[in-house]
Amino acid sequence: MKIGILGYGNLGRGVESAIRQNPDTELVAVFTRRNPENLKIQTPSAKVLNVNEIENWKDKIDVLILCGGSATDLPEQTPKYAKMFNCIDSFDTHANIPAHFENVDKSAKEGKKVAIISVGWDPGLFSLNRMYANAILPDGNDYTFWGRGVSQGHSDAIRRIKGVKDAKQYTVPVEKSLQSVKNGENPELTTRQKHTRECFVVLEDGADAKQVEHEIVTMPNYFSDYDTTVHFITEEELKKNHSGIPHGGFVLRSGVTGFNKDEKHIIEYSLKLDSNPGFTSSVLVAYARAAYRLYKEGSFGCKTVFDIAPAYLSPKSAEELRKTML
Amino acid sequence: MKIGILGYGNLGRGVESAIRQNPDTELVAVFTRRNPENLKIQTPSAKVLNVNEIENWKDKIDVLILCGGSATDLPEQTPKYAKMFNCIDSFDTHANIPAHFENVDKSAKEGKKVAIISVGWDPGLFSLNRMYANAILPDGNDYTFWGRGVSQGHSDAIRRIKGVKDAKQYTVPVEKSLQSVKNGENPELTTRQKHTRECFVVLEDGADAKQVEHEIVTMPNYFSDYDTTVHFITEEELKKNHSGIPHGGFVLRSGVTGFNKDEKHIIEYSLKLDSNPGFTSSVLVAYARAAYRLYKEGSFGCKTVFDIAPAYLSPKSAEELRKTML
Repeated sequence: MKIGILGYGNLGRGVESAIRQNPDTELVAVFTRRNPENLKIQTPSAKVLNVNEIENWKDKIDVLILCGGSATDLPEQTPKYAKMFNCIDSFDTHANIPAHFENVDKSAKEGKKVAIISVGWDPGLFSLNRMYANAILPDGNDYTFWGRGVSQGHSDAIRRIKGVKDAKQYTVPVEKSLQSVKNGENPELTTRQKHTRECFVVLEDGADAKQVEHEIVTMPNYFSDYDTTVHFITEEELKKNHSGIPHGGFVLRSGVTGFNKDEKHIIEYSLKLDSNPGFTSSVLVAYARAAYRLYKEGSFGCKTVFDIAPAYLSPKSAEELRKTML
Repeated sequence: MKIGILGYGNLGRGVESAIRQNPDTELVAVFTRRNPENLKIQTPSAKVLNVNEIENWKDKIDVLILCGGSATDLPEQTPKYAKMFNCIDSFDTHANIPAHFENVDKSAKEGKKVAIISVGWDPGLFSLNRMYANAILPDGNDYTFWGRGVSQGHSDAIRRIKGVKDAKQYTVPVEKSLQSVKNGENPELTTRQKHTRECFVVLEDGADAKQVEHEIVTMPNYFSDYDTTVHFITEEELKKNHSGIPHGGFVLRSGVTGFNKDEKHIIEYSLKLDSNPGFTSSVLVAYARAAYRLYKEGSFGCKTVFDIAPAYLSPKSAEELRKTML
């Protein structure tokens, strides 16, 4: 399966790395908006090309994995390239998924290609687990907790404050609330009761720490609804202790069965990830396998993780899966 | 969707109860090998019939849920009835799944019906999670822990010992080993290091407790490879504190990504169930929905949870799922 990557940031690099772990996949080209000569990749056999050459690769790539951002890249790119390629994206702006789906579906149907959108862990594996758990326990409550992990958006919001040189923000589930859910207590939780926010901030020389802290903890939407802790640290400390991009979280469904609805059940799915892009890209590659198989079967149009039978993700045959994994 | 139940033990009762929680399903008939007049069910609108009348119901039932045991009932029943009905079973003898699949597949293809076998939580939801996690993290280790929960087979084995009036056996994961896996330490675990076995035993009058305990803890296959604790209790205590059928467990995959394989990830799926049959039957009903939909689309043959796209399990439309669960 010949794979192309569009966009070579953290996610694109992750896909390149994941391809090495999947012997049935091969990276053939990385497309970039930058000058290709300035971009170094780790796969000698793959080409690095400017994105304006991508149309020439229509017959040389089985699946194109789009590694751009959800804000501006993917809404434009996925509909555009789904006409030419089987595509995978990780579009994660939950509220805009229905509109994105429609746009991509139209293109993919026009090109008779398969596109799978919103692949990753949330949306993605977390969505799958929400859906399975809801279908199995119709009477119940859903809970999602994120973290402990780095929120890029919140880190960026801190960096925009005057006097801040650099910053990293961790989203942290409130342990007590998580335990209450696991115990089947079905708590009603406010935003503040679900997560806390922990910030590590490097100040510019001469900046007013008190003022910066005040601006962070009172920032609407991002921090004011949370219990937020701010730690001021040196640039060296930030580099040494906070350069990773860990993440994870928990999806729980707490439901009941029985004629008297007195049997309680808890379904829990959790991820603990050293590297958010490292893991997300591994999910993208597994779904690339599914997209290509569906395409070869004559399928086309836009799909999500809900539409893909699990066996399509695995390199193993159906017989092997039944024998070894069922 | 009109549902028939074959076999009215704990699982059959669970299916009847689960049907009440799913407004798009309706119980129309329960088939039994017993005298139907002696069997009381909770659904006034449904018929109770002897199994030898089942052929007359071919056109009145959309999906037949087989609620017999894996040892002798299902190997015979599922192939037999998959010719006449869309069928769901919970066949759980892992080693015999490939052979059972072949038998059922032949029948279902002959009858142009859909049969989904080995539905439940293990095999079933645990299998799904093993498979997804393996497809996403090809470099890693799998761990499955069961419990804390009642093992019917082990309880029965104790009951067969001379001097034992009644007994209940709990399989318990070893907390330290579970934590080691969750910490990404990738331990190699022996049988003894994974689970302990806790037994609650009611003796016959005049039985020799020491002798019974010795026979339990030294029993090959069942107990001799485990650290086993035996508690002797009264019949009243057993009834009061151990009459439920709780179960659950953990499926974990611990894997790595990155060019240097230095990013560790843990995927964990766990269930905490008040009632094993109550939960299993809820899974059966969700897959009955999938079987019927696939049948209406023209599909036929034997399938497993690996072959079923998640959306087929949900009563919600694809649009609704994308909007609310993705």
